[in-house]
Amino acid sequence: MRNRYFSSDPAQNSAAVALYDSVANLPLICPHGHVDPRLFADSNYQYGSPVDLLIIPDHYIFRMLYSHGISLDELGIPPRSGAAAPRDHREIWRRVCANWQLFRATPTGIWLRDELADVFGIHLKLNSCNADAIYDALEERLARAEFRPRALFERFNIEALATTDAATDTLEHHQAIRDSGWCGRVIPTFRPDAVVNIAGAGWRADIDRLSDVSGVHIRDFATYIQALEDRRAFFKSMGATATDQAALTAYTESLTASEAEAIFGRALRGESSAKDAARFTGHMLIEMARMSSDDGLVMQMHVGSFRNHNPAVFARYGPDMGADIPIRSEFTKNLKAMLDRFGVHPNLTLVLFNLDETTYSRELAPLAGHYPILRLGPPWWFFDSWLGMTRFLDAVVETAGIYNLAGFNDDTRAYPSIPTRHDVWRRVCADWLAGQLVRGFIDEEDAFEMIRALAYDLAKQTYRLED
Amino acid sequence: MRNRYFSSDPAQNSAAVALYDSVANLPLICPHGHVDPRLFADSNYQYGSPVDLLIIPDHYIFRMLYSHGISLDELGIPPRSGAAAPRDHREIWRRVCANWQLFRATPTGIWLRDELADVFGIHLKLNSCNADAIYDALEERLARAEFRPRALFERFNIEALATTDAATDTLEHHQAIRDSGWCGRVIPTFRPDAVVNIAGAGWRADIDRLSDVSGVHIRDFATYIQALEDRRAFFKSMGATATDQAALTAYTESLTASEAEAIFGRALRGESSAKDAARFTGHMLIEMARMSSDDGLVMQMHVGSFRNHNPAVFARYGPDMGADIPIRSEFTKNLKAMLDRFGVHPNLTLVLFNLDETTYSRELAPLAGHYPILRLGPPWWFFDSWLGMTRFLDAVVETAGIYNLAGFNDDTRAYPSIPTRHDVWRRVCADWLAGQLVRGFIDEEDAFEMIRALAYDLAKQTYRLED
Amino acid sequence: MRNRYFSSDPAQNSAAVALYDSVANLPLICPHGHVDPRLFADSNYQYGSPVDLLIIPDHYIFRMLYSHGISLDELGIPPRSGAAAPRDHREIWRRVCANWQLFRATPTGIWLRDELADVFGIHLKLNSCNADAIYDALEERLARAEFRPRALFERFNIEALATTDAATDTLEHHQAIRDSGWCGRVIPTFRPDAVVNIAGAGWRADIDRLSDVSGVHIRDFATYIQALEDRRAFFKSMGATATDQAALTAYTESLTASEAEAIFGRALRGESSAKDAARFTGHMLIEMARMSSDDGLVMQMHVGSFRNHNPAVFARYGPDMGADIPIRSEFTKNLKAMLDRFGVHPNLTLVLFNLDETTYSRELAPLAGHYPILRLGPPWWFFDSWLGMTRFLDAVVETAGIYNLAGFNDDTRAYPSIPTRHDVWRRVCADWLAGQLVRGFIDEEDAFEMIRALAYDLAKQTYRLED
Repeated sequence: MRNRYFSSDPAQNSAAVALYDSVANLPLICPHGHVDPRLFADSNYQYGSPVDLLIIPDHYIFRMLYSHGISLDELGIPPRSGAAAPRDHREIWRRVCANWQLFRATPTGIWLRDELADVFGIHLKLNSCNADAIYDALEERLARAEFRPRALFERFNIEALATTDAATDTLEHHQAIRDSGWCGRVIPTFRPDAVVNIAGAGWRADIDRLSDVSGVHIRDFATYIQALEDRRAFFKSMGATATDQAALTAYTESLTASEAEAIFGRALRGESSAKDAARFTGHMLIEMARMSSDDGLVMQMHVGSFRNHNPAVFARYGPDMGADIPIRSEFTKNLKAMLDRFGVHPNLTLVLFNLDETTYSRELAPLAGHYPILRLGPPWWFFDSWLGMTRFLDAVVETAGIYNLAGFNDDTRAYPSIPTRHDVWRRVCADWLAGQLVRGFIDEEDAFEMIRALAYDLAKQTYRLED
Repeated sequence: MRNRYFSSDPAQNSAAVALYDSVANLPLICPHGHVDPRLFADSNYQYGSPVDLLIIPDHYIFRMLYSHGISLDELGIPPRSGAAAPRDHREIWRRVCANWQLFRATPTGIWLRDELADVFGIHLKLNSCNADAIYDALEERLARAEFRPRALFERFNIEALATTDAATDTLEHHQAIRDSGWCGRVIPTFRPDAVVNIAGAGWRADIDRLSDVSGVHIRDFATYIQALEDRRAFFKSMGATATDQAALTAYTESLTASEAEAIFGRALRGESSAKDAARFTGHMLIEMARMSSDDGLVMQMHVGSFRNHNPAVFARYGPDMGADIPIRSEFTKNLKAMLDRFGVHPNLTLVLFNLDETTYSRELAPLAGHYPILRLGPPWWFFDSWLGMTRFLDAVVETAGIYNLAGFNDDTRAYPSIPTRHDVWRRVCADWLAGQLVRGFIDEEDAFEMIRALAYDLAKQTYRLED
Repeated sequence: MRNRYFSSDPAQNSAAVALYDSVANLPLICPHGHVDPRLFADSNYQYGSPVDLLIIPDHYIFRMLYSHGISLDELGIPPRSGAAAPRDHREIWRRVCANWQLFRATPTGIWLRDELADVFGIHLKLNSCNADAIYDALEERLARAEFRPRALFERFNIEALATTDAATDTLEHHQAIRDSGWCGRVIPTFRPDAVVNIAGAGWRADIDRLSDVSGVHIRDFATYIQALEDRRAFFKSMGATATDQAALTAYTESLTASEAEAIFGRALRGESSAKDAARFTGHMLIEMARMSSDDGLVMQMHVGSFRNHNPAVFARYGPDMGADIPIRSEFTKNLKAMLDRFGVHPNLTLVLFNLDETTYSRELAPLAGHYPILRLGPPWWFFDSWLGMTRFLDAVVETAGIYNLAGFNDDTRAYPSIPTRHDVWRRVCADWLAGQLVRGFIDEEDAFEMIRALAYDLAKQTYRLED
């Protein structure tokens, strides 16, 4: 339906349709996400089963099933021990379908429904009766050449797709894409979390890896910074236009050179404290801002996720298993040290994401409506939903306008859900602007220019994807 | 009006009517509230005057009048000193009616209006002109047998009604109900707050009472736990299916055996500190979770109320006088110690209530959408209102779905308001689901199954009232 | 358009029109704002250029332009050094118009549009094409006698306008207004921030000024209090009905006499600490409550703004340059010390403002629905917007009703925007009440009385402007 999800008020509904139609066919800008670059490195990539494609990589789906007592083993999630996971994927699929009522009125439910319909041409409702028929249909589709990743990339009309890659990644798959001659724009994003978080279990090993891949022997803070700068240059040479950092809080602090050196030294010796780690992260956020102001890579910060909250799940399955829970965030005080130094730098763009909606109107919109470097990322994670996105627009636009926003990004591991996610964003924006229009806050000229900005231009400009 | 309170959008309005009609006559499940069991112990119970029934027990009403300078004495509230309260209840009623404009657009105003109309058949608007006529009509109704508590219980179609009872309560009224042969299901709820809060003024005396009623001489932490377990078994034998605890924060901490013993010893000697009290409460929340995982009583937590904020009111009238004020809450970190131990226990259900709406989308829905033991209680206290309940659904359903909710409970001392409160909840849900339906997020099958779950099934299942 | 901004639902829209029409022509009560009293002291006051009037004093406008890389110099903002600011105001105006898309869907954009149309009769949309025509039209209007401040005051139908004035202000302009025989009611407001904030750079000099203007030689805390009381009496004699204090937090604390004296002594000697300053502010909030309970001046508190967040802007241009950013607020614990002493005082009214919307439903409405002295100010600053005001009503009315609100105040430096701001508030209230009406929460009698209270009566009563 052309007008799906729009307000049932006839005036708003028809205005929303007109606005949506004006952007429905624009290319997709995907400047932040977690699609595996391997999909595009091999022109003949095989997805595996429907469960391999749609369930196992998607913690939105299995976290909800887990909350109703279905174990991750029963859903085919492989334990980190390397022990075999259940492989009867048709049985797993039936289990998912039999419990699909859990996803009523959730974005996960909407995405999968729309994805089945729009990408796979399957117009059935997931339930126990339809489970096998849908599974069969999906298997049939996935075997066809027109559903290979590169074919979908073109069908999805993706203009640029950024992956997220560790600082130590060799980007061999990105190199393979380039070497293949295929002209889809798939670019890396520099994510240094593992080498910045000195409290991480694998930090020391990652530093060694960083030395290896950068060719810079890291023996102190200065060589560490040098190695990072080298990696950024390498990522940039491979097409990257952005970096990304995750942090529990937005705390920033400018350490003195000797403080930074001392903490780094303690970390190398395995003697750093929790406080060291928080201060070091705070300092490195500023360092990354400095590097971005030099090399022009757009900086992203994702703040406020308490990772691996459930120790039993973490022990058995590892990270990113749907057990990350938001905490309260603060930006006004926490970002001040960084903003004092780089808040008006002409070459820096900093895109902020977080999981505490209370910061939208109280801190983020006022900050973005003042500091030139700031752009607000779209609602992240749990808030990438119809109501979550609507609340975001309600909370920030009046203070920051739309031109301090970063447009949309899908932030997904679930490749075939990409067009659906962009479609929902475009529909939210169309419906929201239609509401503004029919009430007379904006006029038609404004509305049509704003929908294009939100659907396409802002993401492209913010992430410097214009050339 | 069948469609009262529903959206004025014609499509949503008619969908809401259909959804509402499908559940309007379902029995009421009342798994948490504060109705006095004496109402049902005596088949010939007398309510007293309309003011005794409708004003004096209802702090929602007298807090608002107090905020406009009307003293609680003027409203007939008895001082704790035992001094006589004004007894001219007709005069008090006139005072309430003369100020009824204060309640415009409040749930309190809506409840009383609907209750007068639907329960008492009085279709007048409270004001100075109507005060006497309404008072007379209420007196006339209250004298009739068909308005006795048991008669109303049946007319209200209450399937189960849980009271809230101190751990030291002998449940004599519940016993009397059972002995009477009346078959209304009125059950107790185990609330150990007074014997858990070692900072409470009456704690030591309550411990003695706990020793007495349990027959366990409490001399250390082990005997204290034994006494609590015995009381829980007694409550369960009297029909209880749930416990309830109130805490200022959701802080949990697993004390070592010797720490628990040391704090308990200091408390017995009157030497415990504020920090002791907070840690002890945090430990006892985990202990109660452990006991619930053993005996199957559903655990409830009410978090975030700063009790007795106004010292003048507390000194003169005691607790529960409309002077409790919410504070900010936190769950992600605070509940972790408990969830680490019991978050996936197959025999535990934990229902969370709180007064900080910011936790809905940020913490509660993400937690409930992951941990199997968690269910979210309906909006509590100030948020048990049309907009409050709508915001709750908006904030939690997209992340947790509806099947991680605990349905509704009326949480009231005001017995005749029970059907009205359930009616408002059912109408909110019908209107909210109608909005989802007309916009195409859900289909009709979903909507009709969801309204039934929200109106009836979820409360019954969550509180294990199925048999 | 009579129905601009109202819901597009036909039933709600027509109800909103009827409600709005009933108050559209009521006089304006302006009990809190920042208009310069000089405008009224001189019957022949000249505004300067359109940029002098509309851009340079309005940080809502230039902060947004600054966020897109336009320097404040380019907008004609004078540096505090006294260096000349650019004076080609037509060029500045063109720059503003060329970037006016930034203000789409913002209250700033709406205010200026409505102000141009309703006050100046200019029905053009700001853009590069229209810039010169609008500038010319504005210049023409500003030269006409009918646009002089006093003429507009009468045309705006302002019943009372309060300015905001330092405790050390001699109120010479207010005296000149009185002496002029013009009968517009322009009154001062006592704002002691500069002499209360002992951490302020200019505090010591301000204390000397306070000694001078009060004639009380301030040598200790007692004489300081005496001087403040004298100034309050002077302000009251000049027509003031209210005071105002800004504080980073709502923290209150009753210092002992010797503690207050000690901190004040350290401050006089330039030896006070940050903690001293916070405690002293907390104590002085209670002292001001005490003084208000004596002299009857309504007390206002504005809480939660981190002032001068951008050090580069502050260094070059000084305060109030659009670089104040909200922080999280707390009232339940912070106000307790004050409320314990004055929460039910019959002669005190305390109006609370803040920038953290999460406190609306969690703390402010519950507090205002209990304590007789409290009234909630309208949404402040970033939240003085259609959606901000709607969220405010949604969040507080169900708990506190409307009669614990303080009505509206425009809080503006931008004199010609006053009628527009009141108009938006009246429209928000009309639309909100229309929604309540068509859904059946309130009836017509309620709705028409409520709109009048919100538009006019509550502000007049709260600020004791009745005589």
